Amino acid sequence: MANTTDYKYEFFNVSFPAEYVAHVEINRPEKLNAFMEIMWLNLSAIFKKLSHDSSVRAVILTGAGDRAFTAGLDVQAASEGQLTSTASDAARKANNLRRHILEFQDCITALEKCEKPVIAVLHGISYGLALDMSLACDIRISTHDTKFSVKEVDIGLAADIGTLSRLPHSVGNHSFVKEIALSARVFGSDEALTHGLVSHVYADKKTAVDEALKLASLIASKSPVAVVGTKEIINYSRDRTIVDGLHYTAAWNAAMVQTQDVQDAMLSGLQRKQAKFSKL
Amino acid sequence: MANTTDYKYEFFNVSFPAEYVAHVEINRPEKLNAFMEIMWLNLSAIFKKLSHDSSVRAVILTGAGDRAFTAGLDVQAASEGQLTSTASDAARKANNLRRHILEFQDCITALEKCEKPVIAVLHGISYGLALDMSLACDIRISTHDTKFSVKEVDIGLAADIGTLSRLPHSVGNHSFVKEIALSARVFGSDEALTHGLVSHVYADKKTAVDEALKLASLIASKSPVAVVGTKEIINYSRDRTIVDGLHYTAAWNAAMVQTQDVQDAMLSGLQRKQAKFSKL
Amino acid sequence: MANTTDYKYEFFNVSFPAEYVAHVEINRPEKLNAFMEIMWLNLSAIFKKLSHDSSVRAVILTGAGDRAFTAGLDVQAASEGQLTSTASDAARKANNLRRHILEFQDCITALEKCEKPVIAVLHGISYGLALDMSLACDIRISTHDTKFSVKEVDIGLAADIGTLSRLPHSVGNHSFVKEIALSARVFGSDEALTHGLVSHVYADKKTAVDEALKLASLIASKSPVAVVGTKEIINYSRDRTIVDGLHYTAAWNAAMVQTQDVQDAMLSGLQRKQAKFSKL
Amino acid sequence: MANTTDYKYEFFNVSFPAEYVAHVEINRPEKLNAFMEIMWLNLSAIFKKLSHDSSVRAVILTGAGDRAFTAGLDVQAASEGQLTSTASDAARKANNLRRHILEFQDCITALEKCEKPVIAVLHGISYGLALDMSLACDIRISTHDTKFSVKEVDIGLAADIGTLSRLPHSVGNHSFVKEIALSARVFGSDEALTHGLVSHVYADKKTAVDEALKLASLIASKSPVAVVGTKEIINYSRDRTIVDGLHYTAAWNAAMVQTQDVQDAMLSGLQRKQAKFSKL
Amino acid sequence: MANTTDYKYEFFNVSFPAEYVAHVEINRPEKLNAFMEIMWLNLSAIFKKLSHDSSVRAVILTGAGDRAFTAGLDVQAASEGQLTSTASDAARKANNLRRHILEFQDCITALEKCEKPVIAVLHGISYGLALDMSLACDIRISTHDTKFSVKEVDIGLAADIGTLSRLPHSVGNHSFVKEIALSARVFGSDEALTHGLVSHVYADKKTAVDEALKLASLIASKSPVAVVGTKEIINYSRDRTIVDGLHYTAAWNAAMVQTQDVQDAMLSGLQRKQAKFSKL
Amino acid sequence: MANTTDYKYEFFNVSFPAEYVAHVEINRPEKLNAFMEIMWLNLSAIFKKLSHDSSVRAVILTGAGDRAFTAGLDVQAASEGQLTSTASDAARKANNLRRHILEFQDCITALEKCEKPVIAVLHGISYGLALDMSLACDIRISTHDTKFSVKEVDIGLAADIGTLSRLPHSVGNHSFVKEIALSARVFGSDEALTHGLVSHVYADKKTAVDEALKLASLIASKSPVAVVGTKEIINYSRDRTIVDGLHYTAAWNAAMVQTQDVQDAMLSGLQRKQAKFSKL
Repeated sequence: MANTTDYKYEFFNVSFPAEYVAHVEINRPEKLNAFMEIMWLNLSAIFKKLSHDSSVRAVILTGAGDRAFTAGLDVQAASEGQLTSTASDAARKANNLRRHILEFQDCITALEKCEKPVIAVLHGISYGLALDMSLACDIRISTHDTKFSVKEVDIGLAADIGTLSRLPHSVGNHSFVKEIALSARVFGSDEALTHGLVSHVYADKKTAVDEALKLASLIASKSPVAVVGTKEIINYSRDRTIVDGLHYTAAWNAAMVQTQDVQDAMLSGLQRKQAKFSKL
Repeated sequence: MANTTDYKYEFFNVSFPAEYVAHVEINRPEKLNAFMEIMWLNLSAIFKKLSHDSSVRAVILTGAGDRAFTAGLDVQAASEGQLTSTASDAARKANNLRRHILEFQDCITALEKCEKPVIAVLHGISYGLALDMSLACDIRISTHDTKFSVKEVDIGLAADIGTLSRLPHSVGNHSFVKEIALSARVFGSDEALTHGLVSHVYADKKTAVDEALKLASLIASKSPVAVVGTKEIINYSRDRTIVDGLHYTAAWNAAMVQTQDVQDAMLSGLQRKQAKFSKL
Repeated sequence: MANTTDYKYEFFNVSFPAEYVAHVEINRPEKLNAFMEIMWLNLSAIFKKLSHDSSVRAVILTGAGDRAFTAGLDVQAASEGQLTSTASDAARKANNLRRHILEFQDCITALEKCEKPVIAVLHGISYGLALDMSLACDIRISTHDTKFSVKEVDIGLAADIGTLSRLPHSVGNHSFVKEIALSARVFGSDEALTHGLVSHVYADKKTAVDEALKLASLIASKSPVAVVGTKEIINYSRDRTIVDGLHYTAAWNAAMVQTQDVQDAMLSGLQRKQAKFSKL
Repeated sequence: MANTTDYKYEFFNVSFPAEYVAHVEINRPEKLNAFMEIMWLNLSAIFKKLSHDSSVRAVILTGAGDRAFTAGLDVQAASEGQLTSTASDAARKANNLRRHILEFQDCITALEKCEKPVIAVLHGISYGLALDMSLACDIRISTHDTKFSVKEVDIGLAADIGTLSRLPHSVGNHSFVKEIALSARVFGSDEALTHGLVSHVYADKKTAVDEALKLASLIASKSPVAVVGTKEIINYSRDRTIVDGLHYTAAWNAAMVQTQDVQDAMLSGLQRKQAKFSKL
Repeated sequence: MANTTDYKYEFFNVSFPAEYVAHVEINRPEKLNAFMEIMWLNLSAIFKKLSHDSSVRAVILTGAGDRAFTAGLDVQAASEGQLTSTASDAARKANNLRRHILEFQDCITALEKCEKPVIAVLHGISYGLALDMSLACDIRISTHDTKFSVKEVDIGLAADIGTLSRLPHSVGNHSFVKEIALSARVFGSDEALTHGLVSHVYADKKTAVDEALKLASLIASKSPVAVVGTKEIINYSRDRTIVDGLHYTAAWNAAMVQTQDVQDAMLSGLQRKQAKFSKL
Repeated sequence: MANTTDYKYEFFNVSFPAEYVAHVEINRPEKLNAFMEIMWLNLSAIFKKLSHDSSVRAVILTGAGDRAFTAGLDVQAASEGQLTSTASDAARKANNLRRHILEFQDCITALEKCEKPVIAVLHGISYGLALDMSLACDIRISTHDTKFSVKEVDIGLAADIGTLSRLPHSVGNHSFVKEIALSARVFGSDEALTHGLVSHVYADKKTAVDEALKLASLIASKSPVAVVGTKEIINYSRDRTIVDGLHYTAAWNAAMVQTQDVQDAMLSGLQRKQAKFSKL
């Protein structure tokens, strides 16, 4: 079991509810789990650790409280943080802003780079960063009451922390992709499921979290070599030609099919019992 | 309000039904809005103007009459136009044809390059060019009576004005994509919605146009800096890796988040009133 | 009509049930159509022939028997075949494995490279290679009893014969893509249809094969120049930017629109009779 | 022979000094051929015409007078032109600037898009735009007295009209590429030849222009189908993988090797006389 | 030592002049080593065998006789071979031609795909295919008397077997690349060396072959795991972004640095004696 | 002037020999500047700081002592560090190795990602990491006595920290690239200059460092907005199509040409005095 003391952060609860499963909970419910800078820095630190933690094979990401996965950026905190800019012209200001955006993006991309699969459970208010983050996760499930919004145009911005780059690679219906991104309108789980943003909708948060844990446990019961490779190869292939995807897969599996897990998994299959795989 | 006298074309009606919203209507209903060369040249001219017209922030594209968005290419006119080829061999003929195809493609791509979002409302017969054009738009909605067909194989052609390049980037179900493109079969809005070609289906053309106008008005009420950036970044990211999408986004927003619109939008949000944004 | 004697293989039945239509049936029903190495070598040989066979304009791929399209790799046969490795270290073993994977991939890619469209009909157990193969086909249909599984993680492997590279380019809902690939769970045609893996579901195998034949016959009735170009351009465009897709299309059609089929197809359309197209 | 009256422009002399050869001379020698906006618009118009002019098979581009190919942008004219900006914030100003840069780039890219090869002859002062333009040409030759400079950093700019994008694809020594672009230092033909920016250096302008004409005449004596295809395929391949380059080449030549020129060229070769090729 | 009886071909001599070194000699000197179809098919077969032959770690490719590496395509044989086309229109002819070009390209690409490095020694007449082939090799050396020409435009063709795709990725000076490809002019080893087409020029063929053998022997004395990986990674990286190159390298070396060769090579280095590496 | 106390590291001397110029010296001369892990971690830390240090506009990187820029990896230290691997099979070992390689690569890539240009001065022994590092710099100069070697194949490895990915994008002569990478042979500055690996060769280290400082000072005297943009745009364009390079340039400069530096630079040019630019 992973050591919870390695994962102490003010605005996140990290627990290990099942073997090889980590649960990361955004924990600022009194503010609808809105994000301040320290939070995305911590999110990144947590997922970098989980990525290499051999006690972890699958992760779920949820938001504390009944009301929101997250309301997105804490706009008030953000506006206070920006008062210090001393750039002397628009170009210098642009250079500072670019650095800031790249650093913020990197924090969210830690979810995608985490070697282990991450399942996001969206409930209640799920605005702005809720999409940036969940689109950097591998699997998205939601609840009947989830209120989604690509909120950024409502504050005068094109979303720049990942939503606009990941949406067209995650959701097949591009008319829907453009519509929600351009209008910032709130939509529900029915549309999210129909158009391909989530793969399951559950009655309420408790059910959704339970199902996410079951799915995470199922994934965690598989060979970690197989699971880590599956995530990596899909992410690589998503962005490239089929030919390049196949080529990379061959280089990857040249090492990975040498794992003992293949024999163990086959034997367990024949014996109809659960295989035990070494740590990765 | 934009100046309608700038937009006088024989086969198009251009109007401005709401603040910052343009309505482009294909107007050759007696021929089911079939396209002759002058029409795609004019379409291109119109959307190049709309792209830079600071009085316009969203556009809807519709077809005049009850029967068709468009029946596609006016085959009779096209065949007459081609009589003049004097190329002396198949290679020279190919060179002329390639020039012609590239010019035609460029005209339709003007819809995609238009900085402002374009919403296509498809009704009735929507064949051939109907798909080339609407797939170059940002949002597609249709009506219960829409008859879609990627018609080109029925006239001995692989569609070459954009459908085959844009379909696999607009619709997630590639089995459906191949099926409709290879068979030229007519299909309806139910399949178009299920498989991700449109994001809304309405009872009839009037309702669909009204809803498109509402959506266009909603988008036009947002910061034009945010909206233009959102369209650009999604289009860029759609075609590239996530890493490249994020990188481009950071360069783009380094300039664009310096807009006054961010302050105005936030203040309006707090005051629960509609922001007024400067022209772009 | 194609010559069936050119297509004699122990584990495949190749027939020509309609004009210009080939039917390839995987024929090892007593083993749930599980694949041994000779089978993917033969699959490749068959589809390379069909690709250039001027008597063939569309192909359907099915599995013999009631129980399975295919249960995937014949694991027992595979494990016996690998006993002979004499590589002296992990790197040399990796080099041998990489060669093997690339050769296996190439065999499955023959389905994609086949110039003529291929329709896969999945029924019953459709595990592992069933997905590798059907994702390399153009169109996928299934039956009410189809049991799909991206099975590889259950034997300690990331799928390396194509599924992980083709899934994210074939199915729009990437949450679903990751979920089925990471969990290996069995799912049915309802999910396959909702999330975009198949484009039609039929009541039973007989109906599905009949419908596939109808669709194949429809496609085979079109100009083969148009059909071959349509498959090629969609595959090219799927992997590249819109700009590159359009550019390639123009080069392709510069030759292909010189076909006599355009005149023949138009004339037939006017005369409302079926065109006869020359062999390709 | 092409019609010179089609090519009348104030700041360019266009002549046809040999069969199928066009000579475009930048003609503002009293200002060291410095460019005002009308000039790049005209440059673009000229090369778009030459691209499709069947009387032209090769082009040379030179600067009038003894002192300069071009000193680059006419900074004084440029600064006067920009006085009219009324953008209300940095984002809106950025949007206007981006439109302007894209339009300017498009004009220079007309040299690259011209179907016929373009040979640039650089002499004397060859600063800023001299590189943007000549790098968009196919062949670059220079004289002993040529003074090259990627001048833009000296006026506070990263070069944005093409030099920085084309240099790393035109010159193999990237240490040299970075050095000249970052320092704006003036360098001569010796370095340009050693590091791969030009392919020939001649004693003086007259000799260089004569040699360019000879080379243009040689190219113009070849099959125009072969020459146009050679330019297109190299440009396509330069930017893409070898695999994609080969694939595109096969599609291109499928049409183009059907030319009568192959027979004519072979026969002429055997008969050791000059072939006459039809117009393209 | 490899078995020479595996490598018997009418127009090629294959020998093994040093440990782990193969020498492939094009052997049709009475026709200046001009290529007929059987020859490129055999070339491909030879290099596919060498690629997996564990007795081979480096290859040199030369032409028999004093006069030519190769004069290129045997035009007379080629023209006779094409008499049989029965395609009924330009499109069908294009389809046949495309198949033929792709097959021909694949044969030459066997040089690039050969896992082991290939050194081409060009001497005397080196036209057309001489460049297609040597550009698909890893290292090119030549002699004082080598006469290079990208000859294809002289027979009315854009070169389509690889030269135009590989030249811009092999030679840094693109002005030179375009010049030789557009003009078909003959040039010598001095230009080839200055502009980066070859890396060494020797006095005569004998010296060049000796030096190529020395270089091949040197490469063959290294760890084959290291050498094969070096060729593969450079080829991969050449065509892709730096980021992608690094990413692929990490996946590749994850398996390959587990080789025993690292220990053996280090120990040999310390002991200043030649390491013996296991077969690959 | 930058604060040297921010840059205290055991194996690096960081000084600021001229306004806006930093000098980073690898300082382990008693071991020929061979690298241990702490050194590449520190290299990365130093260049991340320099990247955002507004007192720095150009950097030179040199090696302490007369004998070597660097002899590369400290193989003895590396072998000791690897003793701790406890991975239970080849796949798990591969996963650990991949993490290690990616982290090491990231450290070297810090040179490329540093916003400010970096000039490498290579002298004496410059093996292995010397190339990985200098190829991640912008400009490479060397001395008469520099001994270059892509050394990795001599220790049984394909170079995996960047050389093989960056060489084909930095040096135009790919025959030379393959030769030095496959043979590990030592070569000198004459070849490095001829084939395009360096842009200047000087008589000795002192001269080379002086010239590097002059060049760095020249670059540091320019607008930092222009210089940073020039580095970024060349790096972006190097890896992408011309079209994409131009597109990115337009987005980048839309912000950056709004700098006050343009006015200041122009005015200084007219007044023939040195401009003073604000910090970036």
